[in-house]
Amino acid sequence: VSLGYVDGRVVPLAEATVPLTDRGYLLGDGLFETMRAQNGHVFRLEEHAARLRHGLHVLGLDEGLITAFRDAVGALVTAADPGELYLRVHVTTGPFRDVPGMDPEPAVTGLCRPLAGYPGSAYAGLRLVTSAHRKDRRSPLSTVKHMSYLPHVLARRQAIADGADDALLLNEAGRAAEATTANVIAFRDGVAYAPGPGEGALEGVTRGVLLATIAEAAELRFSLPLDVLAEAEEAVLTNTSGGAVPVTRLDEAAIGDGRPGPWAGRLRDAYLKAVEEETR
Amino acid sequence: VSLGYVDGRVVPLAEATVPLTDRGYLLGDGLFETMRAQNGHVFRLEEHAARLRHGLHVLGLDEGLITAFRDAVGALVTAADPGELYLRVHVTTGPFRDVPGMDPEPAVTGLCRPLAGYPGSAYAGLRLVTSAHRKDRRSPLSTVKHMSYLPHVLARRQAIADGADDALLLNEAGRAAEATTANVIAFRDGVAYAPGPGEGALEGVTRGVLLATIAEAAELRFSLPLDVLAEAEEAVLTNTSGGAVPVTRLDEAAIGDGRPGPWAGRLRDAYLKAVEEETR
Repeated sequence: VSLGYVDGRVVPLAEATVPLTDRGYLLGDGLFETMRAQNGHVFRLEEHAARLRHGLHVLGLDEGLITAFRDAVGALVTAADPGELYLRVHVTTGPFRDVPGMDPEPAVTGLCRPLAGYPGSAYAGLRLVTSAHRKDRRSPLSTVKHMSYLPHVLARRQAIADGADDALLLNEAGRAAEATTANVIAFRDGVAYAPGPGEGALEGVTRGVLLATIAEAAELRFSLPLDVLAEAEEAVLTNTSGGAVPVTRLDEAAIGDGRPGPWAGRLRDAYLKAVEEETR
Repeated sequence: VSLGYVDGRVVPLAEATVPLTDRGYLLGDGLFETMRAQNGHVFRLEEHAARLRHGLHVLGLDEGLITAFRDAVGALVTAADPGELYLRVHVTTGPFRDVPGMDPEPAVTGLCRPLAGYPGSAYAGLRLVTSAHRKDRRSPLSTVKHMSYLPHVLARRQAIADGADDALLLNEAGRAAEATTANVIAFRDGVAYAPGPGEGALEGVTRGVLLATIAEAAELRFSLPLDVLAEAEEAVLTNTSGGAVPVTRLDEAAIGDGRPGPWAGRLRDAYLKAVEEETR
């Protein structure tokens, strides 16, 4: 069953509302985290809290909101069924007021529902198209998970209209940054190219989990030039919903031999094992 | 009195809510228009509708939503007091659904309240600071008035924290694009420099009204290089709330002699006269 969290209470999701005047609605002026849970345990809650803390800092909001975030997570997980859950918790700057500079009264909301993940067919390999939208590394928002998501939404919508699965966003320097809801990692000649915050990508929690596995067998580099991606043997997208999902095409070209490679399977297994160990 | 418009009905603003699962809230996936009205007449409604139509096109939404937009405007203006009103109407892509590519069920909401405008002290001259955030002319969203407004919100918040009134955003080529909620126009040697959509600025309705007045006495150019702005005799911000408001400082430097000039007064008068004539 799907649940919402508003005004400190858990309600059926279909009944959860927010004020029209919430700045999260009017202006996209807020932050969010998406998480997965099982048996009442949220996977890597501390990493999500740390990323949220970074966002609070960039938005000039009080770090104490981390407590309200934990309360929302706890209330949703406690009220939900013990199966695999998807959680999304938001912190917005609260009601719109006309006086500039007035202290915000932040609001915390959330929702949870059964984890859907990627369809099984995704693991046969995704096709990405390069988006015209770019991440700008100079913006402090480029590494913040915030509610003004329309550029990414539009990039994804365009990719799907073009018959692809997702869009690859470049940074303003023209190197790969991320997909619209996932980090990207490519492999070539024993080196893993995993663009992170320094390249304008969000610091994905799943990416962090998988880098530990990758580091056992490959050298790590934290940028992904397009010429490297064009010659990669393999590439994956990583996020909370999918773990590691193989990417087998970029625009009109195959990546590697156009089929999922050994890294994709290895990382998917490593991710599911990490989730299982932490949430069983 | 302040009113909200949700589900096709007018309610007190404090009681107006939207679903937590609305994509306008979750993702900033929507459009808005801000308008002014008086005596039941909305100033330049057709220009606002035209800009919204452009946004609907970019977001891949049905043009027929213009009718729902007009309905919202009409319901709010009819229900409100006849004095000077500020209106804000939103079109979002509606409830979040998990299936990518599924047709959206867009939602239209709105609010109105007495027009506040800029404080009288603003007409003594605003100070802008140059923001690190840039508009990217390559993004189709750069000319769309959309709900993912956080970059502008943050630029404004930073400007106010720095003791200024607003931020000046440059485009990716380093020329002036716009302020966070206003267009910018500068004057030098009988030429008006008014960056518009071609420079990554929103096509302001007020800007359009004032360009007609400016064209009577100055040559128009549609970009504003920073070296021109540094040598300008005068500059103004233009938007629905303020009409034309003088800018007298940029970062640490005075613009012109650091006092409001003749264009500011002339444009403010021309704007108020246009509003009066259309809405009396």
